[in-house]
Amino acid sequence: MNKKVSLKDIAKAVGVSTALVSYVLNNKEKEARVGKQIAEVIRKKAAELNYQPNQIAKSLKSGKSFTIGLIVADISNPFFANIARTIEDEAKKNNYTVIFGSSDENAEKSQDLMDVLIKRQVDGFIIAPTEHTEAQINYLNASNIPFVLIDRYFPEIKTNYVITDNFKAAYQATSHLINNGYKRIAMIAYKSNLIHMQERIKGYTMAIKDHKVKSVKPLLFEVAYDHAELEIQKQIESLINGGQTIDALFFATNTLSIYGLKFLNNKRLKIPDDVAIVCFDEGDAFDFFYCPLTYVKQPLIEVARQAVKILVNQISHPKQDETQVLLDSDLIIRESSRKTK
Amino acid sequence: MNKKVSLKDIAKAVGVSTALVSYVLNNKEKEARVGKQIAEVIRKKAAELNYQPNQIAKSLKSGKSFTIGLIVADISNPFFANIARTIEDEAKKNNYTVIFGSSDENAEKSQDLMDVLIKRQVDGFIIAPTEHTEAQINYLNASNIPFVLIDRYFPEIKTNYVITDNFKAAYQATSHLINNGYKRIAMIAYKSNLIHMQERIKGYTMAIKDHKVKSVKPLLFEVAYDHAELEIQKQIESLINGGQTIDALFFATNTLSIYGLKFLNNKRLKIPDDVAIVCFDEGDAFDFFYCPLTYVKQPLIEVARQAVKILVNQISHPKQDETQVLLDSDLIIRESSRKTK
Repeated sequence: MNKKVSLKDIAKAVGVSTALVSYVLNNKEKEARVGKQIAEVIRKKAAELNYQPNQIAKSLKSGKSFTIGLIVADISNPFFANIARTIEDEAKKNNYTVIFGSSDENAEKSQDLMDVLIKRQVDGFIIAPTEHTEAQINYLNASNIPFVLIDRYFPEIKTNYVITDNFKAAYQATSHLINNGYKRIAMIAYKSNLIHMQERIKGYTMAIKDHKVKSVKPLLFEVAYDHAELEIQKQIESLINGGQTIDALFFATNTLSIYGLKFLNNKRLKIPDDVAIVCFDEGDAFDFFYCPLTYVKQPLIEVARQAVKILVNQISHPKQDETQVLLDSDLIIRESSRKTK
Repeated sequence: MNKKVSLKDIAKAVGVSTALVSYVLNNKEKEARVGKQIAEVIRKKAAELNYQPNQIAKSLKSGKSFTIGLIVADISNPFFANIARTIEDEAKKNNYTVIFGSSDENAEKSQDLMDVLIKRQVDGFIIAPTEHTEAQINYLNASNIPFVLIDRYFPEIKTNYVITDNFKAAYQATSHLINNGYKRIAMIAYKSNLIHMQERIKGYTMAIKDHKVKSVKPLLFEVAYDHAELEIQKQIESLINGGQTIDALFFATNTLSIYGLKFLNNKRLKIPDDVAIVCFDEGDAFDFFYCPLTYVKQPLIEVARQAVKILVNQISHPKQDETQVLLDSDLIIRESSRKTK
């Protein structure tokens, strides 16, 4: 048997780009503005070489676009940039291409993106939904467009989702601080109704209550997404100046951690001697912080893998029951939350 | 005069999502799978409220999709994640939505993305091209599809581009190290034929030659993109063990900097006493490094702004001459490259 003839082989034989050959053999030469004559030459050469269209080309005829639309909350956040990258890699293994956009935690932008991607006939969506997008999610459901939510979901809407157990992660993180002897533990979180943030806050609050240490009270500070850095600075400043001494800080996200740690550095507060730290998520930034930081490590790759798996499965076999996956995080314990002396 | 009636107002009045109203009023109800009856109700309500379609809706009829396709080299790199974010913001100001993908410095993936986005009828592209994609760029040119290259370009192909002056930036950075008394300055770069990397290497080499300090010779180490971290470790290790003492390191990108700095930390080499450092680009990571780092600050926002401006202009007025923009970077001088004693 001869080696299978590829688009590249035809391109080489004709002396044009693989792209050109692809358009012609997928009968898309008109929209790709390929000249009639060159299309003819390519078709002849393909026949001559006994070219067999591959799985993807065949499936295009079946109406599938083999494209996944990914909407993340903020692509400049390393958490989402890494999820995007992993979803691309996983999708590629399934012959899917991912096109994505960032909603910037803004419902209107999310809507724009969804419109654009639906019109461009993606086969399905992976979405980290932002606040006030329930109508958009309901619309996808009503339209039978396959989708999987990640990172966040809406408890009142039946959907596929892959999330991590945020309550448990925050409960563990806070309990760890209490067990290591910290008594005035503050949490800095986003002001948000989104479930992942609410669960993290609940986990923190519940751990404080459950441990019944008399002097430990919840000290929760919620900052607005749009002015997070400034509000964190104000909160920490007032904590220090107000004489309301804290001995530990739990940051609800990686961005909040970076803002907070920068400000603690400015104020020359030493970690963990002046204040212990637990963060959510990782980041290159943390690797350079002078004190190794304790953090909640979410199973990013597993979230991406499962989301792609569920979506691809649902695209091929619609009308299944929803698949809902809850994954555990790991608490990586390091120097920033060491036992008090 | 009454306030302008929006899609949202109609959605509210009918009790459906804005998405639904948008599909119907853009005559896309069929592809969006909206029921006939509900479409009728929405159209009646729109007429009743005297709805005037906005610019975007009008322009849809003109055949434009008001969508930009963005192909970056690696979305998990903060440099590209931030460019993507800024391009989104700039595009939004021009009523464009951006859908993007990451080529992962892989020509085949770049081709896949381009195919997908062309089929999805983006109005134009912004591309940070990867190696061996000349054919793809030629194809866009031949097909009269508007596009702008950023960060990198191909000198032999006539295109729009917005880049920074990489030669000048590297020349300045290296000269700064020489002027501050360093004599054994090594550069760590990627093994790549891409122009931005070649220009950075040239700038470094030329600065060393021009300064004619007898003991200063170029010490260039090129690492492969796919195994960069491991190769950097090997290079630094061999520099230390081989007795080939260096007194300064110039990293050609932010990712290379992070890998290198981590390894220098592991080896307990002190900056700048054991080795001085100049990096390319910024990153949250650098803010937490114990020694404030000298770095080349590229004008990210300006690159994004100009790229969107040129593209939008070209979409509206095709067949113009190419616009080529070369922007200057700033060398931000800090502690990591201070004068030798």
